[in-house]
Order: sequence, then structure tokens, then C-alpha cells
Amino acid sequence: MRGIDIEVSEVGPRDGLQSIKSIMPTEAKKAWISAEAATGVPEIEVGSFVPPKVLPQMADTAEIVAHALTIEGLTVAVLVPNFKGAENAVKAGVHKITIPLSTSETHNLRNVNRTHEQMIDEVRRIVDLLNDLPPDKRPKLEGGLSTAFGCTIEGDVPQSKVVELGVRLMEAGCDEVGLSDTSGYANPTQVRELVRAVRAAVGDEACTSIHLHNTRGLGFANVLAALEEGITTIDSSLGGIGGCPFAPGASGNIVTEDLVFMLEAMGLKTGIDIEKLLQVRKIVEQALPGEELYGFTPDAGLPLGFKPASKPRIASAAE
Amino acid sequence: MRGIDIEVSEVGPRDGLQSIKSIMPTEAKKAWISAEAATGVPEIEVGSFVPPKVLPQMADTAEIVAHALTIEGLTVAVLVPNFKGAENAVKAGVHKITIPLSTSETHNLRNVNRTHEQMIDEVRRIVDLLNDLPPDKRPKLEGGLSTAFGCTIEGDVPQSKVVELGVRLMEAGCDEVGLSDTSGYANPTQVRELVRAVRAAVGDEACTSIHLHNTRGLGFANVLAALEEGITTIDSSLGGIGGCPFAPGASGNIVTEDLVFMLEAMGLKTGIDIEKLLQVRKIVEQALPGEELYGFTPDAGLPLGFKPASKPRIASAAE
Repeated sequence: MRGIDIEVSEVGPRDGLQSIKSIMPTEAKKAWISAEAATGVPEIEVGSFVPPKVLPQMADTAEIVAHALTIEGLTVAVLVPNFKGAENAVKAGVHKITIPLSTSETHNLRNVNRTHEQMIDEVRRIVDLLNDLPPDKRPKLEGGLSTAFGCTIEGDVPQSKVVELGVRLMEAGCDEVGLSDTSGYANPTQVRELVRAVRAAVGDEACTSIHLHNTRGLGFANVLAALEEGITTIDSSLGGIGGCPFAPGASGNIVTEDLVFMLEAMGLKTGIDIEKLLQVRKIVEQALPGEELYGFTPDAGLPLGFKPASKPRIASAAE
Repeated sequence: MRGIDIEVSEVGPRDGLQSIKSIMPTEAKKAWISAEAATGVPEIEVGSFVPPKVLPQMADTAEIVAHALTIEGLTVAVLVPNFKGAENAVKAGVHKITIPLSTSETHNLRNVNRTHEQMIDEVRRIVDLLNDLPPDKRPKLEGGLSTAFGCTIEGDVPQSKVVELGVRLMEAGCDEVGLSDTSGYANPTQVRELVRAVRAAVGDEACTSIHLHNTRGLGFANVLAALEEGITTIDSSLGGIGGCPFAPGASGNIVTEDLVFMLEAMGLKTGIDIEKLLQVRKIVEQALPGEELYGFTPDAGLPLGFKPASKPRIASAAE
């Protein structure tokens, strides 16, 4: 991970933008992605390959991917709901594909109109597609275990169900599985227990990432619990925009700015220049007039004399 | 602690109200305190004994204490800046007195116009006053180590300085010391390290509480770190109102509603009925028109099928 301790994966251009009514212009998306990558953010989920009728906000994903692939060192990730989306992602040449599977079957049916069985079959077809590619062209495939901490429709999702589906996704050929608190229900004890259980079942190296929302204010407490269990990749969204249209109230991913402040303050290197990151917010604000941005560090500023863990890179020191 | 795991100490009527311009009417304060105590909150810092010219918001503290003392089972706490305030607190019959000492001497001078030496002398005088009382009338004295995680004027406050002042407060006769992130600078690693260092120096039983702000969004991550180090009393403010007028940007204690959700979700009993607690917010909102309240759980609501750790008490079950 390029000399960093924790990988921040920015999901704003996908999870953020798909959940708001405004459609960000393609050029603004490109400017955002370029500016955020330039702060040192190592991975960005830049869009999703879904029918434009369903999510017009994501209609330009192929063009955004093409732009993002020109940024050296950036891992370009996308989300796909099905085989068709994966085909488009492969054509676009992404580095990483995430396919979400809601551990709550009701939620999965509403989200992508498929049962768990049908979803696992879809994953197998995607794996076959990927296996036909030359190894250096093969994107990494992550199975995203959504609603892993509870569902707004079903309520409690048993831990055993999440573990079982994680195992099945790995058996179907995913490279890894990620845990997603789609509904913002998670608490630190649950994070700790679920991460431990899933990693025990699929292996530590196959479960390294977590996707958290700040719906009930516990986003960063949950980050801490995840870090303590060995999670090394944390999803977040600049300005905390985003959520799930099928999980009412679940607006707001954890805020990238606050996450980077937390990690760097704790002495964990993210490779991200936090001062530069705080400037990127302006691009998003200007491109989304009327949309609310979240986050505390952007308002409060950095502590007096703050010393980040990540040393400034040559490039930014020379600016 | 009455069969509870973690004690939530509500500081809104003091820390919250002293930091905003609006003056809450005395009757509204009484209604708030009664309603919140009725949800099971075990301790409330109901005001501070300071000159009314300095903080007119606190001018009715004696009357508020008298009211709070009629509530069975409630620990009635106040803050005092000096001996005179402690005298008034004793006269009023409070259960607990906190005297803050800013570990940043510059901050202490601006806050109460005293050096560290003068502050320790003041604490000794207060201890003498308390020691003259009959044991059953003697309030507990806490030394509050403010700006313990950094200061908006001095920046970094060395851990050794915080530990030294904690030891000196205990030697001067305090019953315990508490750690306070006045400036909202704390991060979980620092919380862990400072709690450990202070407890090693003064003894675990003499350092059981922490006061956190959510200035940079890390309030609840810091709570988790504190819990993991054995802290058992957490200050918070209903609606997150409050801060320190001498620490710019440091508005917003951690939010009681989110704290109780976090603890109960983690299986830690607070003795608080969270559904009832969420109703108390209305009282504060109505009594403070135009003031912003914070918190996520009040907006998002409890997760579907949420099971709190604290069983409903007979009283609330019968309602």
C-alpha cells in the first residue's frame, strides 16, 4: 500500500452522487477526482455501471473511468449491480469491481430484484468473465456485504447469515468481501464481532475493508473498532454525501475529511495531505449548489500545531 | 452505580447553557432536569456558581440546585471556578463539585485569571472547607483537567504536564480528577495514552470520568477509546449544545442521545430509557428557540427492532 498504514477509499463520486437528486456535470466529476487523487487518496470509486434510466447521475461512468485511469497510481473502482454492469466495467478497464449483495434478502430484492441464490449465480458469471481476461487486465472483484449490520426493512440480520453469504461469495470466486453498514445501524461491539466472525470464516486477507455511514453518529467509533480488528481499508465520502435510496434516513457516508484527520492524528499514515484535502471540498460544494455537505473538521479546522502522520510528499512541499 | 455499567453525566444545563447567548428561563431548566432525570440519567451538572455578571445564564444556579435535590436518586453536580463558588455550592447542598484547572496555563489565566500555583492553592482552601463538613454533608470534589488534549492558545499540552497536575490536584485533596477535551483536539490514541498515564499516576479509582467534545467529529471514537481504558463516567450534553467561550470553534459537547444509543447498542447498561430521552429534546428545543441542536440519532430514529441493554424500569413500563 505505498508506505501507508490505512487505505482511504473515496466513494463520494459513486455512493455520494447516486443518492442525491442533483446530477454533477461530468467535468466537475473529473475535476473532483483529479483534485482528490492529487491529495494522495489511493483509491476512488468513481461511479457505477447501472442503466442510466435507473440512476441518471451515473450515466457518464465510462467517461469518468477513462479520465480516472489517466491518473497515475490511482486505483479506479466501480460498483456494478449485475453481469451487464461488470461487462461494461471490464470494457472500461477499471482496476476494481464491487458487486453488492444485501445480506437482508428483502433489501436485495428491492435493490436489484434478485434473491440471494440469483445473486450468487450472477457473481459466478462475472467471475467466469474475469477469468477469461489476461491476468494483467483482470480487475479485482469484491463482494460487498450490504445491510451487514441490520436492515431498515428486516431489522436484525443474523451474524451467521452474513458469515454464510461471505463464504458463498468467496466460493463463487470473489477476491474479497467487504462489510457495509448500509443502514447506519452498526455499533462498535457489533463491528468488532462481525469483522472477527467473517475474517475467521474467509481468512483475514479476504476481508480487509469496511463501508460505514454516520447515520446515528457512531461512524468513527465504528471505524476505531474496525481498525482494532485489523481492517485496513475504510470507505468514506468527501463531505459525507451519499447513502442508500432504499434505506431511509441512512444518508451520509462517514466524512473523508474527518476520517483522514482521525487516522493521521492517531499516527496512522494515509498518504493523504489533509490540508490539500480540505481544499477539495470547495470543488464539490461549487458543483452541487444546494446540497448539504457534512463534516466537522472542515468547519473547525485542524488543531493548532497539528502534526499529521503522513509526511508531505515532495510534490506538495514544492508547491 | 445502581446496576448500570456506564454512568452518563449530563452537563447540558451547565456547559451547554453557559456557552450560548440565550438565557434559558429557570422554570424551563427545572422541567429539563426533571424530565431527563426521569429517563434514568444518574447525574446532572445543573449549573455553576460564578458571578452573574460573568455568566448571567447561571444566575439561578442556587434555585436550580434546590429543585434538583428534590429528585430522588439524582446526583446533583455543579462547577465552580474558585473558593467563593465552592462556598455557595456547599450552602446549596450539592452532591458533587467540579473545579476546572486548565492544563494549559495560558488558558487557565484567560479562563479564571489564575496561575497553576494559585489554582492549586484555591483547591486546598476548598478542601479545607469541605473537610469541616460532617461526612454525610461533604460533597465529592473533582478536579477537572481542562485542555488536557491540547489548547487553542498553546497548542500541544505535554502529557507529563497533565499527569503532574492530576497528581497535584489529588495531593491537594481532590477525590478524583477528570480529563476534559475542552478544545475538541483529542484522538483515540491520545485518549488511550493519556487515560492510561493519568490512571497510572493517581490510581484507577481516582480517574474514572472523561469530558469530550465533538468538534472534529471524533467524539464517539474517543468515547470508545476511553471505555476500553476503563473509564466509566462520560459527560455529554443533550442536543450537543455547549462548548468553551475561550476555545473558539470548540462548540458542541458530545450528544447525550447519541451517547446513550451507542452505549445501549453495545450492551452497556446506562439505566436510561432512550425512547424517553429522545422526547426530552423537545423541552430543550422549545426553551431555546433559534439555538442549534446537534445529534444524529434524534433525526434518524432508533434502528428497527432495536434492543437496548437497559431493561425498561417498572415505572416506564407502566406508563
